[in-house]
Amino acid sequence: MSRKPPVLLVYAAALNRELVTDAHRDRLAGLCHVLDPEPVPGFDDPRAAPHLDSVEILLSGWGCPRLDAATLDRMPKLRGAFHAAGTVKNHVTPACFERGVRVTSAAFANGIPVAEFTVAAIVLANKKAFRASRRYRELKGFRLWSQEFPGIGNHDKVVGIVGASRIGRMVMERLRGFDLGLLVYDPWLDAGEARALGAEPCELDDLLRRSDVVSLHAPSVPATRHMIDRRRLGLLRDGATFVNTARGALVDHDALTEELVSGRIDAVLDTTEPELLPEDSPLYDLDNVFLTPHIAGSQGTETRRMLDLALDEIERFVRDEPLQHEVRAEDWDRIA
Amino acid sequence: MSRKPPVLLVYAAALNRELVTDAHRDRLAGLCHVLDPEPVPGFDDPRAAPHLDSVEILLSGWGCPRLDAATLDRMPKLRGAFHAAGTVKNHVTPACFERGVRVTSAAFANGIPVAEFTVAAIVLANKKAFRASRRYRELKGFRLWSQEFPGIGNHDKVVGIVGASRIGRMVMERLRGFDLGLLVYDPWLDAGEARALGAEPCELDDLLRRSDVVSLHAPSVPATRHMIDRRRLGLLRDGATFVNTARGALVDHDALTEELVSGRIDAVLDTTEPELLPEDSPLYDLDNVFLTPHIAGSQGTETRRMLDLALDEIERFVRDEPLQHEVRAEDWDRIA
Repeated sequence: MSRKPPVLLVYAAALNRELVTDAHRDRLAGLCHVLDPEPVPGFDDPRAAPHLDSVEILLSGWGCPRLDAATLDRMPKLRGAFHAAGTVKNHVTPACFERGVRVTSAAFANGIPVAEFTVAAIVLANKKAFRASRRYRELKGFRLWSQEFPGIGNHDKVVGIVGASRIGRMVMERLRGFDLGLLVYDPWLDAGEARALGAEPCELDDLLRRSDVVSLHAPSVPATRHMIDRRRLGLLRDGATFVNTARGALVDHDALTEELVSGRIDAVLDTTEPELLPEDSPLYDLDNVFLTPHIAGSQGTETRRMLDLALDEIERFVRDEPLQHEVRAEDWDRIA
Repeated sequence: MSRKPPVLLVYAAALNRELVTDAHRDRLAGLCHVLDPEPVPGFDDPRAAPHLDSVEILLSGWGCPRLDAATLDRMPKLRGAFHAAGTVKNHVTPACFERGVRVTSAAFANGIPVAEFTVAAIVLANKKAFRASRRYRELKGFRLWSQEFPGIGNHDKVVGIVGASRIGRMVMERLRGFDLGLLVYDPWLDAGEARALGAEPCELDDLLRRSDVVSLHAPSVPATRHMIDRRRLGLLRDGATFVNTARGALVDHDALTEELVSGRIDAVLDTTEPELLPEDSPLYDLDNVFLTPHIAGSQGTETRRMLDLALDEIERFVRDEPLQHEVRAEDWDRIA
């Protein structure tokens, strides 16, 4: 490591306290010349301007502005944009790849809490815990719950995973310790790979028909928009649970709302379309919907895991070692 | 296997359909002489009476009446009472051990869903998912959730396990895959065993002070009644989550209710004292309590796992092999 490349931190300052510990600061200072100890919110910020000529590395987080051609023109020495958060699609543009700026994402680290949340939600959904909790409050009495909620339990049930993405695989890995059957649909996954993941490969329609729980883990790209449409929602079994911790755009929400209002299926929804539901959405108040405000991804202390990953990548870059979480131009259409 | 010992099924008939599959019936018929294909609800039932003289094995389930001295006098050939459910304390009495009736419990199989439920509840509690769900319904708007719920997330958090019981160990085993610290309190566990379980051994008061989540897995016996009393509840950190999937009697519920009404701590309660809360209990309606009606244990298809275990034990008994889930007189005070 001959010299320390100049690094600029670019993310919303509000996140700083949660995100960056003293250990992180020390580690970064050991690897790079830190141009400003505090993050800049954007490149037009007066604290950013004096450093744009010299900056070689960006350590970015939520709130990083778009790295388009005009912006990159102002940073002629930029060689790497290391993101301490999930998707890079809000700030990275094709211009980065054209100019050879290396891009990494902490989507892997961000996937861990999503997978953990999803598995927990599947377990409680199979126990009909969200419904049982409301029903108990309402009745203030006990019932024979196995009769009240036919099919309750995490034994001999089938979970269908839509998308063997990074997170889809993490979910399958964590579900292997349970007495549950696993189906997986992914157009890019061959049957042998599916079986190696402990799952039976399955066409999407078939998966929807056969699963007790369906969990979405496909990337949100133009080709997957509303892949779960009205017809496909109609294939779900009565009493099935539909889980979305991925992206709302994967699902036709008019059709989903109708199915849920009818009470035919249950849902766990951490993401919706639109992201913030309109005030009159029935999804806010349905007993068969466990609705959370997009918290499955990294929150609080979990964000540190993403910074650790970004710093690992910066260290590899500085040492001329192969990057492990690089985003390449050719991945663009298949990642979230 | 020279002869098939006569077996009688004793449990609440309502459970029959869920509990017993054709495969189970065939297996039992291969091992024993089945005196009546249908379960009897009690020994005074007209279908039971003709078989009491000859019965050697009871296959019991929820609702089995007490096997006290007078009842055992009516079954002079009884050698084994195999229970396809958790606790045997509702039907087994010291008279069973005095007469050499072997007793087994399916508590091991019943522990699996409890451990699964508990881990799922811990994960969602650390994400403040139960609170966030209600807050989102109320606000119909987003907040910066890491500020709204300080300490949100499953990273660098401490989970304290009270009781390295069968279920306590299953919970610890499942939590080892997470980035969480584990403390354990158990007066019968030595420090080396605790470390082998991946946990730091800890006195109870200290565990309560240091944990972000405290989960109870101690047996409910006279010595543990209200072990979590007012003073100890006061040791919990502000914002900590108290999880009880064990038994309500472990906790002083007047004190617990006060702590929860104050909003100082959160709770996930699957069991309470009394078991069915009084209609005016504030626990039904608090935003910081996820209350479920004692469903963590085996429900629906999960009960089959317990019958599988009981049949495994009957098979061992018939083949004169060592039993693996035997309850002995000397275990009585330490088991739930």
